[in-house]
Amino acid sequence: MAKRNLYLSNLPVEEAQARYLAALQGLLNPRPEEIASEDALDRVSWEALFARRCSPLFNAAAMDGIAVTAAATGGARESSPLTLVRGKDFKVVDTGDPILPPYDAVIMAEETLEIDDDTLQILQPAVSWQHIRPIGEDIVAGEMILPGRRRIRPMDIGVLLSGGLARIPVYRKPRVAIFPTGGEMIEVDKSPEEGEIIESNSRMFAALVREEGGEARRFGVLPDDPRQIGEAVGQAAEAYDMVLINAGSSAGTEDYTVQVLRELGEVAVHGVAMKPGKPVILAVVKGRPVIGIPGYPVSAYLAYKQFAAPVLARLSGRREEGSSLTGTGRIEAVISRRLVSSLKHREYVRVKVGLVDGRLIASPLARGAGAAMSLVRADGFCIIPQNSEGIEAGETAPVELCRPLSEIEATLVSTGSHDLILDIIGDMMASSLVSPEPAYLASTHLGSLGGLMALKRGECHIAPIHLLNEADGVYNVSTLRELFPGEPPALIKGVGRVQGLMVAPGNPLGIRGVGDLSRCRYINRQRGAGTRLFLDYQLRREGIKPESLEGYDREGATHMAVAAAVKNGSADAGMGVSSAAAALGLDFIPLGEEEYDFACPPRFLTLPALEIFRKVLQSPAFAQRLKELGGYTFGRCGELVFLKEEIS
Amino acid sequence: MAKRNLYLSNLPVEEAQARYLAALQGLLNPRPEEIASEDALDRVSWEALFARRCSPLFNAAAMDGIAVTAAATGGARESSPLTLVRGKDFKVVDTGDPILPPYDAVIMAEETLEIDDDTLQILQPAVSWQHIRPIGEDIVAGEMILPGRRRIRPMDIGVLLSGGLARIPVYRKPRVAIFPTGGEMIEVDKSPEEGEIIESNSRMFAALVREEGGEARRFGVLPDDPRQIGEAVGQAAEAYDMVLINAGSSAGTEDYTVQVLRELGEVAVHGVAMKPGKPVILAVVKGRPVIGIPGYPVSAYLAYKQFAAPVLARLSGRREEGSSLTGTGRIEAVISRRLVSSLKHREYVRVKVGLVDGRLIASPLARGAGAAMSLVRADGFCIIPQNSEGIEAGETAPVELCRPLSEIEATLVSTGSHDLILDIIGDMMASSLVSPEPAYLASTHLGSLGGLMALKRGECHIAPIHLLNEADGVYNVSTLRELFPGEPPALIKGVGRVQGLMVAPGNPLGIRGVGDLSRCRYINRQRGAGTRLFLDYQLRREGIKPESLEGYDREGATHMAVAAAVKNGSADAGMGVSSAAAALGLDFIPLGEEEYDFACPPRFLTLPALEIFRKVLQSPAFAQRLKELGGYTFGRCGELVFLKEEIS
Repeated sequence: MAKRNLYLSNLPVEEAQARYLAALQGLLNPRPEEIASEDALDRVSWEALFARRCSPLFNAAAMDGIAVTAAATGGARESSPLTLVRGKDFKVVDTGDPILPPYDAVIMAEETLEIDDDTLQILQPAVSWQHIRPIGEDIVAGEMILPGRRRIRPMDIGVLLSGGLARIPVYRKPRVAIFPTGGEMIEVDKSPEEGEIIESNSRMFAALVREEGGEARRFGVLPDDPRQIGEAVGQAAEAYDMVLINAGSSAGTEDYTVQVLRELGEVAVHGVAMKPGKPVILAVVKGRPVIGIPGYPVSAYLAYKQFAAPVLARLSGRREEGSSLTGTGRIEAVISRRLVSSLKHREYVRVKVGLVDGRLIASPLARGAGAAMSLVRADGFCIIPQNSEGIEAGETAPVELCRPLSEIEATLVSTGSHDLILDIIGDMMASSLVSPEPAYLASTHLGSLGGLMALKRGECHIAPIHLLNEADGVYNVSTLRELFPGEPPALIKGVGRVQGLMVAPGNPLGIRGVGDLSRCRYINRQRGAGTRLFLDYQLRREGIKPESLEGYDREGATHMAVAAAVKNGSADAGMGVSSAAAALGLDFIPLGEEEYDFACPPRFLTLPALEIFRKVLQSPAFAQRLKELGGYTFGRCGELVFLKEEIS
Repeated sequence: MAKRNLYLSNLPVEEAQARYLAALQGLLNPRPEEIASEDALDRVSWEALFARRCSPLFNAAAMDGIAVTAAATGGARESSPLTLVRGKDFKVVDTGDPILPPYDAVIMAEETLEIDDDTLQILQPAVSWQHIRPIGEDIVAGEMILPGRRRIRPMDIGVLLSGGLARIPVYRKPRVAIFPTGGEMIEVDKSPEEGEIIESNSRMFAALVREEGGEARRFGVLPDDPRQIGEAVGQAAEAYDMVLINAGSSAGTEDYTVQVLRELGEVAVHGVAMKPGKPVILAVVKGRPVIGIPGYPVSAYLAYKQFAAPVLARLSGRREEGSSLTGTGRIEAVISRRLVSSLKHREYVRVKVGLVDGRLIASPLARGAGAAMSLVRADGFCIIPQNSEGIEAGETAPVELCRPLSEIEATLVSTGSHDLILDIIGDMMASSLVSPEPAYLASTHLGSLGGLMALKRGECHIAPIHLLNEADGVYNVSTLRELFPGEPPALIKGVGRVQGLMVAPGNPLGIRGVGDLSRCRYINRQRGAGTRLFLDYQLRREGIKPESLEGYDREGATHMAVAAAVKNGSADAGMGVSSAAAALGLDFIPLGEEEYDFACPPRFLTLPALEIFRKVLQSPAFAQRLKELGGYTFGRCGELVFLKEEIS
């Protein structure tokens, strides 16, 4: 068998960082360059910058009015005004005009009485230097305007120029070479064949480097060939300040990076006790940092942030944000679901964060290293320390944000049943169609009952539900009354939607109803999902035992996840909404219409984000989107129903 | 007399904003453009972006190992291993490799026993679909990746590409035309003559526009000519999304902007109840926003932030940060000095912010509209509402930050006597000379005694002082013992420095000592300043009454302020350190050496920023800087002196 390289170390993150920085001791030498001050936004001052000129450069009028000689105005009284003649006793000045001898004071225009074009009167004497900005009042030549290593803001640029510094020395942007590798990788403009993957991590790295003040140069994909990788990296280590190699850092047959780096230079660390991101390689080649970053997108992001970003900060002169992963800030949040983690590593769990009843609630997202969408959806990272076995639901834990808190505060938190329209509603809430100020929708999918439980625990603002009461055939109302005795949430009416079976195009197994499910591989929804209850109801009506279905225990978390399983052939049928089937080009066998509504405690109805949510539901533009999707009715969409307690 | 335009309105800020947005109703129409996803960092999605492809695009190995047919592994047991043959029973796969029929499961490499190159054994059966990432596990085609109006982050770029979106529609960057005006303004590359001012505001606006996602085009300075201004603005209103005109918005003789804008379009607001920034003009010309911004740098910054920035946000699709002035966040801070304000306007006071003993302390900076350096030094703005007469010292008030809180937390807060070396120490603390992680020094100048009072109130970490005890001739020690009975602060030894009289070059009045001060215009330092006490001591020794000095009551807050007054001829002599005289080319008459030290309560000695501060004081590089400045001795610099209580 091909030789595999199974020996990764398991160093704690901080130890790996320290070991790497020690290996780079004396090697990270930033360099200066001189640029025009007007181009210096977000650059970092190389050294202290001292004013070359005073500002103001001359004694200047601080007000619009007249320049006078103070000593000559001593006699002015309210009872005996002093008459002044233009050219002899005064000169009209605007703010900023120079005040030259013999004048040594300014009287405000408002405090003069106009007699004629050349004569005016004053009622009180001027004090010398009044309303004059003396030379250097704001900036004195020789004074320090900015210290070194300061990130330059717009207001700094104005003052640098006023102080006579048209050009300044700043940290040169560190140059970072980025090498994607892997025979299966293709460029973004190509169409992938079976087995090919669009190379995207390198573009993410390039954006990260740019965001953090570096200059990124992305090279084309290198094949899995140690010689070619070695040549490219060796050359880049001479010409760039840092080199990133993506993928090939694990222990697979085609993972040559660590061998190559051992031959080219010194590997300080291979393998870190973090998840995702374990197989990172921290090396030094020709005196330059070279980092091998694992290929899974979440691993790639985290390994970059933990190891490449601090090195870049030393080169760019920007502040290292210490252990900060995101730079946006750290909050304490209530973790909504139990997170089990291993003592073998520190784990970085992506979370959505919402502000409900004044508490910040963090809901964990998909945890796999390949779950790139979890990075997009994430509002932050909950970091489970290596010495912890996890966090219980309801416990508070620190979360590093990757989205501004102001956006999180403007977010409506939805937990419950999944439907594609949630994405569309969220999109429209953020657009300017219904409100100039955007609002956001964060949705977590735990099924209808899961959503109501979250609502009870105060972890969300609304719960999308579709729960049939088999006794009266009415949706949603009776469950709310049962679960919230005394004060049931209000019901915001959503859509009517057709549920049915999704099957492969052309329906090769000839499935016509639940009666046919016993002869195929089914994929179910998770416990508590309204769609699962709908199946159970249909099975009961037909007298079919759930255990007789192959795959009754296999669970998908969303309509789309179920549709994807049917699409990829790992299941033959699954229950879902027609829009999900349509999105993936599947056949759809309708079984009935149900009511998909939103439970919402009355205290949340006045939240700005909820008002925007309802405006979207009632908008013609939303109705139009539903029509285009098909499979929905929307006669009562956005209507508010207050459930009274039943009189017993 | 020239016609003046004294009639400004005094609308509250929110009312002015609302009136302007109402005038622009329906006119702020952002536009889309299509760009490569890899270039989309910090751009804003124009609409919801849906995946075109699944990711993974095929069923893929999630682990390095072997692909097998699950059904064929059923017999494997620990007691009776199953032997598999390459090519027939298994295929070696790396993470990400496609899994094709007949294979439907992956067994991890670690769970196989190698027999020879083509044979291996397994000890337990595989479950179908194990360790396989099915098609669409991460992204399902048709799924929404990003909603519209979302600012794009590095991780979003990776997923957009994986989802098959090589190009995306984003908000086009709004184009902003910037017109500086004023006959006295010259370009940055020119050398100003008397009465000329280097035009710098337009460069600050350009940086603000860029920072906030717009494209700035700065035009050359326009003269004070209504016809030329009118033509330029009229043309720009057709070609740009927003137009800014700087200066000419006040009521001086050359302030034509408002007349011009009334002729070209509609002026919605002229004059807002804010300080600085009152004479802002908010107009609409040819359906485009045109804003006349006052000329003083602080007014210019605030007027831009309050009126231009919200308009820009609507055009760029970015979130309006509501009332946020700075975007960095709002904190509550203790205001260290009383702030009196008028009921006529809302006032924006620039403050330095420090974290002392867990409390955020805000120290007000210079309040004038022309004090551009106050913007550079500011960590934030304390906003005094229009209906408030001010804030008492020690009260808590909201402060909008314009510097990251992380930097403020790494800042050593110094309040006390001023010396030029504080700037140099601050510069070196931020550089990488003594520490890889920068620390900062924030200094406020209230004189030696003012600093010790601030130390007592817990508003600073250190107080630079130079207080002579006339009885024993020893500096600093006795005052500390008096003011802090029981537990005096430690003393960090600073420098010995020569104090003396600064006079005009060539010493035209022939001043040789304090005995000559009665025949000149003196400028003093503020009460509590060690330099003032030094003068008083010298006067007493010579038997001179302070009242006999012209200008004894005129106060400068720093050595440089006093030096500048001598330099600009508004005073003939002032007391100060030789480095200040040298910086402005003044003559210097030395009068004696004093000890300039730092008082520091022992509890602060272990703060990282303080350790860095002491490292700087003890560094050879600092000694070198002192030598270059001249006038300092530094034998004990950085030494720690613990004051024992005196045994009485």
